[in-house]
Order: sequence, then C-alpha cells, then structure tokens
Amino acid sequence: MTAIPTTIDVRNCHLVPVRGASDPRGTVNFLEVGREVGFEVRRVFYIHGVPAGHARGRHGHRKLELLLLALSGGCDVVVDDGRRRHTLRLERPDLGLYVGPWVWHELVDFAAGTVVLALASAAYDEADYIRDEATFRREVASRFDG
Amino acid sequence: MTAIPTTIDVRNCHLVPVRGASDPRGTVNFLEVGREVGFEVRRVFYIHGVPAGHARGRHGHRKLELLLLALSGGCDVVVDDGRRRHTLRLERPDLGLYVGPWVWHELVDFAAGTVVLALASAAYDEADYIRDEATFRREVASRFDG
Repeated sequence: MTAIPTTIDVRNCHLVPVRGASDPRGTVNFLEVGREVGFEVRRVFYIHGVPAGHARGRHGHRKLELLLLALSGGCDVVVDDGRRRHTLRLERPDLGLYVGPWVWHELVDFAAGTVVLALASAAYDEADYIRDEATFRREVASRFDG
Repeated sequence: MTAIPTTIDVRNCHLVPVRGASDPRGTVNFLEVGREVGFEVRRVFYIHGVPAGHARGRHGHRKLELLLLALSGGCDVVVDDGRRRHTLRLERPDLGLYVGPWVWHELVDFAAGTVVLALASAAYDEADYIRDEATFRREVASRFDG
C-alpha cells in the first residue's frame, strides 16, 4: 500500500485522508470534528449538476476554512496562494482537500454526475469573499509579501 | 408552488427543506448550523456504492441526532418509533430527513449511484447504538409507554 502524499506546495492547503469501511453492503466514509476536520462545522454545502465546461468557486476567503470532498464523480481544483498555483483532481470519496483562508480556488472540469461536498467553518458571509482576482492578489501580496 | 409537508407521524423525525441556488453553472444547496441543522455537527459520513437489494442502518440511537440527505440517486428510509412506522423516499438534494434518538431506521432500495450524506451530533460511540430490534422495542416501550 502506498501512502498518500498529503502536502501541497500552496499555503493553507493540504489533502485530508478520510477513513472508511467497505463490505458487501457498500462503503461508508466518515469524518469527525477534531480529527479529519480541524474546525467547527458551521455550514455544509454541496455542488451538483454542473454542466461540462462550467466552473465553480473562483474566489478567495479572508477567514473561512473549507474541506472539499468529491462524493461522486470528480473535478479539478485549482488552488493559488498568490505565489504558487497547483491543480489537483478531486475524485476520491476518501481524500478531501482542505482550503484555508487567502487561497484563490476554482473548481473546473466536472465529470458528469459529480457531487462536491464542502464543510465550512462559518455561516455564509459575503464580506468574507474576495471575488475579484486582482483584488485577491493585491491583498495577499500586502499580507504575506510585506 | 406547493409547500412541502415536513412533519412525519413518527416521534423525533421530520423533513428538513434545504435552501439552494441554481443557475447555468449548476446547483448548490446549503445548510447552516442553527438553521437547517439543529445540533452541533461533530461527525459527517456518507454512504455510497450500495448494491441493489442491500440495506444500511437497521439500528436506533439512544442519543445521536442525524440529518440524512440524498445528494445523488435515492433510497427508501424506514423510520419506526416503536409505535408507528413510516417509509419515505429520500431522493431530493433539497429535502433532508432529521432522525432523532430512539428511532429505528433502515435505508433500503438504493438506486444505482446513490450517495447519502449524514450529519451527526456526536463522534462515533458504539455504546449509543441499539442494533437488536427486539432490544430497541423493549427499551422504547419502557421509556415512552411506561
């Protein structure tokens, strides 16, 4: 068995192995707060029915922490901390992606039938979103490269 | 638009409408603790790859609260409080099922590709499970019919 690399060379991002159990009745995967999830879960959302060629995300957060999981199908996730950019395929129910604050993230190349689950550390707050990429790069540069 | 009935004639069970937004990029549904979710989320699990003819669940809990959601596909959920038994089809990402303590629940008749998400109020604790139906009926009868 090969160990799954969990580090990504992008600030505030890492992969999260998810425990599971399979038997003739199917598979269950499970995460617990304080173990796989390093924050209190205040919001849960799921993205589905994304047509081919469309993207989700395309923003950064000032405070929010996210754990993204492809429960069905898969998509590419682009994460960018303002200095480094990395693309990975999210397509295993047993491997999530933690995306912390100050990370621009885009979800693209959705396979048909994809369901992406997100666990989030706070209730929805539009003021926490940075939706303009130039603004994101400016804020990140002043915060981390100062 | 028809209002969705949210009550079920089984103790400690009710349906939970889930907010969402759809546009040409697909659909997102979202739940927040303190709104759709009436408990702290301490554990998240998801069931997938259940072959036709197999069942999940088939137990009750003494304390655990659950919110079940079919993110893809669908299954029947049987809920039984020891007096009343109800079966409903869980197959809409925008309609969850709350299952509180002292409810025997079984998930059956899974469609191919079904993913059921569960939000749970506590970490895993085998002592909280009642896996024998006769024991469940005896404990429930002494607790609620005494």
